[in-house]
Amino acid sequence: MKDKTFLMIPGPTPVPESVLLSMAKHPIGHRSTEFSEVLKRVYEDIKTMFQTKNDVMIFTASGTGAMESAIFNLVNPGDKVLSLIIGNFGERWAKIAEMKGAEVTKYEVAPGEAINPDEVKKLLDADVNKEYKIVTLTHNETATGVTNDVKTIVSLIKEHGAVSVVDGITSLAALPCKMDEWGIDVLISGSQKGFMIPPGLSFLAASEKAWKLHEQCKNPSFYFNWKQNRKSVLEASTAWTPAVNLFVALDTALQMMKEEGIENIWNRHKRLGTAIRAGVKAIGLKLLVKDEKYASNAITAVLPPEGISVPDIRKTLKKDYDIVVANGQKTLKDKIFRIGTMGYVSERDAIAAMGALEASLYKLGYKFELGAGVAAVIKSLAENK
Amino acid sequence: MKDKTFLMIPGPTPVPESVLLSMAKHPIGHRSTEFSEVLKRVYEDIKTMFQTKNDVMIFTASGTGAMESAIFNLVNPGDKVLSLIIGNFGERWAKIAEMKGAEVTKYEVAPGEAINPDEVKKLLDADVNKEYKIVTLTHNETATGVTNDVKTIVSLIKEHGAVSVVDGITSLAALPCKMDEWGIDVLISGSQKGFMIPPGLSFLAASEKAWKLHEQCKNPSFYFNWKQNRKSVLEASTAWTPAVNLFVALDTALQMMKEEGIENIWNRHKRLGTAIRAGVKAIGLKLLVKDEKYASNAITAVLPPEGISVPDIRKTLKKDYDIVVANGQKTLKDKIFRIGTMGYVSERDAIAAMGALEASLYKLGYKFELGAGVAAVIKSLAENK
Repeated sequence: MKDKTFLMIPGPTPVPESVLLSMAKHPIGHRSTEFSEVLKRVYEDIKTMFQTKNDVMIFTASGTGAMESAIFNLVNPGDKVLSLIIGNFGERWAKIAEMKGAEVTKYEVAPGEAINPDEVKKLLDADVNKEYKIVTLTHNETATGVTNDVKTIVSLIKEHGAVSVVDGITSLAALPCKMDEWGIDVLISGSQKGFMIPPGLSFLAASEKAWKLHEQCKNPSFYFNWKQNRKSVLEASTAWTPAVNLFVALDTALQMMKEEGIENIWNRHKRLGTAIRAGVKAIGLKLLVKDEKYASNAITAVLPPEGISVPDIRKTLKKDYDIVVANGQKTLKDKIFRIGTMGYVSERDAIAAMGALEASLYKLGYKFELGAGVAAVIKSLAENK
Repeated sequence: MKDKTFLMIPGPTPVPESVLLSMAKHPIGHRSTEFSEVLKRVYEDIKTMFQTKNDVMIFTASGTGAMESAIFNLVNPGDKVLSLIIGNFGERWAKIAEMKGAEVTKYEVAPGEAINPDEVKKLLDADVNKEYKIVTLTHNETATGVTNDVKTIVSLIKEHGAVSVVDGITSLAALPCKMDEWGIDVLISGSQKGFMIPPGLSFLAASEKAWKLHEQCKNPSFYFNWKQNRKSVLEASTAWTPAVNLFVALDTALQMMKEEGIENIWNRHKRLGTAIRAGVKAIGLKLLVKDEKYASNAITAVLPPEGISVPDIRKTLKKDYDIVVANGQKTLKDKIFRIGTMGYVSERDAIAAMGALEASLYKLGYKFELGAGVAAVIKSLAENK
């Protein structure tokens, strides 16, 4: 049977049929009144997902493009940047900053660990001359299935005086992330995660403090330029030719999200993540996350049982049950597999995924109480409303 | 009646139904074998459109992103750049180079004129110390409907020793543009023109000489980085998350283009452009292009008859005949309208467009021999095979 594949990777995530169909419509002119109406709605509705009053710029580019926009509009060669790293995507902030000529100090923890706010406090207190201009961090690290305590960390950065730059690519529209209330200076996200549309768009909002730092930036990016792009937001337009069809898809998805309500979206992700973890533990598997209070509700990183390989688990899940889960990245390759529950994922999907995982492990010869995983998922979903 | 709109603007251009439907499929994982197969085909087939053996990088970004990639991977602050400008998009090269800190010398001609190669020779001969590192130019300027003689100009740049950077956004897969044969160093293009897919992807290929200049570039772009992106081409992968659905659409479109054949595509555009110009002149309207040998076969810029406004013409064409043509840009706004014939446009479309233009002008009170335009289009198409 073809076309049955269900993605439970950390992106792209499943896309609702109504979104796919709206995307398949003939592109309209990007300077038309009709498209301007789409943009007006989108620019307004996306603010709720960022929990901000700041303008949200939308780039035709995937998430790394928005990361480049943040760094290339803030950093001058020689600037000091502190990068808090808990995985592959935290590392990417450091790489981009180095590419722009920054002097980057990396604070890195072992895979599966979150950043301890106490350590951040020490690092920032030690910077007595306030040399760090920027601190980068990842909200939800899909590489390890760990969610940082952004609220606390950002408050410490605020106290120090640096500009906080947060990757919310896999947290926005999935996990609570409150830009204005928490005082985040620069927050970015991408389309193919919580936002339920295919990859190709990314988002960025900046605080007044970040805008002031931008004023001092020489040779910023042109394509990802903040001034040009914000000017276009205010005019219900785009600076350059946009991916028209993806904007139309985003419009459709945002209407769906408005209908569900942001609090309900957050709660759904919490319930699904909690249930998957309960199921995984019930069949005797281990989570990569060290302290479950930092476990991501968008993605769960799981260690395979002894003697059964990650490629075999992924292959069986894909071939026999049409479910795609992700391998680990870089040093974690073949050491973990990752089950995404972000975006357009329902209770049925979580139950099916756990059932398929049990079926795969059963076939691969793992000895466990068959059914225990699904039972735990069902119970968890019933108990957490 | 809804959904009847036909775009004859300089992009987005009409998209074939098969491309729209392939785009509407559920996104597949961008690190899957399945997607890698798509990439292999696309990276190979796109070389024909560039007429090159060089690797063609594909960015999830619109054309301006590829322009940024060219400049930000070649220019260091203080470098001397010569920009040959015949309209809005030629001007954009200069702006991006200035943003990266280049010292830009602009050579600009009046709207409707092409660059005279003799003048380029003078400019380059005057640069006795070979200070110009880069010369930028536009192949087909949609702002004015003018096509530069890139072949001759690039040969002069080659003689001088600078790196030629050519915007082929609206020429590739529409007008003959032969990267290797003509010796173009950097050539870029975009998805929503001759390539017949919606906006959101752009392309760049670079010669060995350009790669050598890139080696000297400090703080190049990260997202648009040449090394990272070429490495991914060689691995049938992408550096960052790609706009999966647009790549699948591109794959479908490239198969259609292969079937038609690049020479036939060029010839179709030539016949359609020639026919539209014949029709426009037959009803007494004037072309913006000063010397018709430089007239673009992808877009025709037309002056309205005295006493009839461009907005009225555009409005009538849209409202009564569902055809969208473009206004002029910046200083040319309301002074010209522009009829696109690039991409998925057939003889029937050209005949219908001319008929609708006649009908609109007739309603708006213009006195002319009704039917003369369509007659000229039909004759031109019949005579030029």
